[in-house]
Amino acid sequence: MSLENHHPLTSISSSTSGFLGQNKLSIRTQNLSIPAKNSGISRCIATPTLEKNEAYKTKVSRNANMAKLQAGYLFPEVARRTEAHKLKYPNAKVISLGIGDTTEPIPEIITSAMAKRSYTLSTIKGYTGYGAEQGEKQLRSAIASTFYANLGIEANDIFVSDGAKSDISRLQVLFGSNVTMAVQDPSYPAYVDSSVIMGQTGQFQTRVEKYENIEYMKCTPENGFFPDLSTVSPTNIIFFCSPNNPTGFAASREQLTKLVQFAKDNGSIIVYDSAYALYMSDDNPRSIFEIPGAKEVAIETSSYSKYAGFTGVRLGWTVVPKELLFSDGFPVAKDFNRIVCTSFNGASNIAQAGGLACLSPDGLKAMQEVVGFYRENTNIIMETFNSLGFKVYGGKNAPYVWVHSPGQSSWDVFGEILEKTHVVTTPGSGFGPGGEGFIRVSAFGHRNDVLEACERFKQFYK
Amino acid sequence: MSLENHHPLTSISSSTSGFLGQNKLSIRTQNLSIPAKNSGISRCIATPTLEKNEAYKTKVSRNANMAKLQAGYLFPEVARRTEAHKLKYPNAKVISLGIGDTTEPIPEIITSAMAKRSYTLSTIKGYTGYGAEQGEKQLRSAIASTFYANLGIEANDIFVSDGAKSDISRLQVLFGSNVTMAVQDPSYPAYVDSSVIMGQTGQFQTRVEKYENIEYMKCTPENGFFPDLSTVSPTNIIFFCSPNNPTGFAASREQLTKLVQFAKDNGSIIVYDSAYALYMSDDNPRSIFEIPGAKEVAIETSSYSKYAGFTGVRLGWTVVPKELLFSDGFPVAKDFNRIVCTSFNGASNIAQAGGLACLSPDGLKAMQEVVGFYRENTNIIMETFNSLGFKVYGGKNAPYVWVHSPGQSSWDVFGEILEKTHVVTTPGSGFGPGGEGFIRVSAFGHRNDVLEACERFKQFYK
Repeated sequence: MSLENHHPLTSISSSTSGFLGQNKLSIRTQNLSIPAKNSGISRCIATPTLEKNEAYKTKVSRNANMAKLQAGYLFPEVARRTEAHKLKYPNAKVISLGIGDTTEPIPEIITSAMAKRSYTLSTIKGYTGYGAEQGEKQLRSAIASTFYANLGIEANDIFVSDGAKSDISRLQVLFGSNVTMAVQDPSYPAYVDSSVIMGQTGQFQTRVEKYENIEYMKCTPENGFFPDLSTVSPTNIIFFCSPNNPTGFAASREQLTKLVQFAKDNGSIIVYDSAYALYMSDDNPRSIFEIPGAKEVAIETSSYSKYAGFTGVRLGWTVVPKELLFSDGFPVAKDFNRIVCTSFNGASNIAQAGGLACLSPDGLKAMQEVVGFYRENTNIIMETFNSLGFKVYGGKNAPYVWVHSPGQSSWDVFGEILEKTHVVTTPGSGFGPGGEGFIRVSAFGHRNDVLEACERFKQFYK
Repeated sequence: MSLENHHPLTSISSSTSGFLGQNKLSIRTQNLSIPAKNSGISRCIATPTLEKNEAYKTKVSRNANMAKLQAGYLFPEVARRTEAHKLKYPNAKVISLGIGDTTEPIPEIITSAMAKRSYTLSTIKGYTGYGAEQGEKQLRSAIASTFYANLGIEANDIFVSDGAKSDISRLQVLFGSNVTMAVQDPSYPAYVDSSVIMGQTGQFQTRVEKYENIEYMKCTPENGFFPDLSTVSPTNIIFFCSPNNPTGFAASREQLTKLVQFAKDNGSIIVYDSAYALYMSDDNPRSIFEIPGAKEVAIETSSYSKYAGFTGVRLGWTVVPKELLFSDGFPVAKDFNRIVCTSFNGASNIAQAGGLACLSPDGLKAMQEVVGFYRENTNIIMETFNSLGFKVYGGKNAPYVWVHSPGQSSWDVFGEILEKTHVVTTPGSGFGPGGEGFIRVSAFGHRNDVLEACERFKQFYK
């Protein structure tokens, strides 16, 4: 919708003043003049600016857990440095292989289902209001039968959500502040940050770049990116992402069997993030529930974002098996259901229509093509860095290439590549101390951009 | 999409096994046979059933705060009793004036904008991935200029969300467990339940039907539904909803000025819920920020749900002014921004396109018509109960009629009306002890259903 559409508002202020009140309809053009595209870049950068001296202060103390959080969330920091680079080189064509943001169009079989649902909402027969907080029954059933057939996961074990990131925080609220947790190091920053916010951790230890009371399970080339469980201190919760973001490592059936046994031995709950499962090319498990006994120790969270280009549409799901029990025998699913009903009102019904279309035969084929396209990008990037003599990991089972430059700081490599090639990557240390010395190169991009970025890498490193 | 669409999945399992794995595509017809419509009714009802004796238990303790929560969330309990009634009277035409769920189609100017955005996502030029967690700049600007013009609220003070219910919980996470809070009694149950979940409260006191450490601000006919602030114990946070759900009371400019002064005197933060502001017919403030000085003490949360029928589409916003500071001078907006970036990934871009269309001149007219329709329903319901000699409150500035039957328990009145007229209402005591003796009658319904329900009331009470 163009900005011009808004200007006539003032002219109807009288006709609407009855429900909008006086002068509610004049326009701040200086606000509207900010192009929408900027928002994608400037996100997460704190907005307020003020003179603390004169300003009135409430008597409400700042949440001490919030104060523990370090700097900005990783990707906004990358965005900040990218913006600075663009100011320095206004004419440079900057290519982003940084944040894993999908770039390819959503297959029309999926968007047409969402458009159809939109139109249906303007009909008396087709209109629907509040849906079930847990998601529409038909979608829950389709997710169960498509991804978990013969695994004993049923429709009512599945909670449809607006994405895995939201569900991770809802799970942290469910667990509360008195649990201990472990994460792969490196791993997706939301696990640690949401744990800090809930008060599960101590302060950040600058020397080791870790938070107190979090068990960092080191995943490096030395251990084949799978933690040496004999050295891991038992915790209540174990966040485990496979295929892993950022390393691209996918755990084998044997390794996941060990992980489930480790959880069972210690009475832990595994929160298994399978958001990249469809990118697997090896015959590793797509779901933790392929491992016998996992239903008694694991939750699985997943997402449509990287399968169908739903990063902006927002749709995911979390599986909480009815077999998963707290120490007092109370079902975890029952409390998660209460959290979902109190803190959430369901994913957008239009997004759910898209999610259902994704699981039709043609929708599945279309998703397969989307995944296949990014797989080809991944291969191009891997071949490039291999040809340049880098040690390259990941890629084979995930849309991320994990490039090693031993002895160099991740942020230095990130800065050097940006400065010399105008290509944005992600510094590995942003995912935890175990990522130091690596950069993550994302395979999400238009083919021409990926090819050009690789050409620039070859020029720079030749 | 019909269920049949799923059956052919099995036939393509081989072609997709590469990314879905073996036998991931067979169908559980017993799941799919569950009609989608049921989900709207059965929501929030805990699903798991198991034999605790033999079952394996993890060693993770259940979150003690979750254990404090009483029974089910109000509306699922109403849904349970409604279902039981339908089983008892299979041929009865049950009419729901219970949960405030919109029933009228979304104006086509709005749904066509969402359909257009859906289709655009399948084009290379029009595709967008991750949006800003805070919402698209153009929508934030339009909300600021439409609802907060001349109030000093700018685009970057506005955080677009998937609805007020989600934002209330995100705000509770922001405040943490060490704050005290006050609520109107009666009030929307999500305020209290989210506070209990975050550990801000003590145990539930069955005798008084209140949680320890929550200040219940009694709002009854005796005080004109506005709390006697001279008797209210100061708290860190004050949840205040106007027009109020369930009482339908809307605070006047003078009363809100008193509230803001009360907050300032005590250094409190007001969380002002204005989700029903457009239903106001009196000239009361539509926003707390119409009160001078409110930006230093208040947050406002609002929603498209009841304005445009977005209960299922999911779109709302929260205003956190940059002037609002914690006791140490740290901006509240800066921490809320961090919460939003860590625990949320933005509202669906399709829903945001609809939200922007709502704020165009034609969109505003369309919303006004939707609100006007429900206003007429409200008048019909008010006249009915007035004609039957009930003391009736609310209605004038809200889509809820608050009917008093002194000396009777709310659940008894609810049960009696359901039994005798097959009309579902909501028992006032479900909103807090201050609601005892009242029932809430929602004006959200098709005109014929509202007229028929009122006829049945007249027959029953004549």
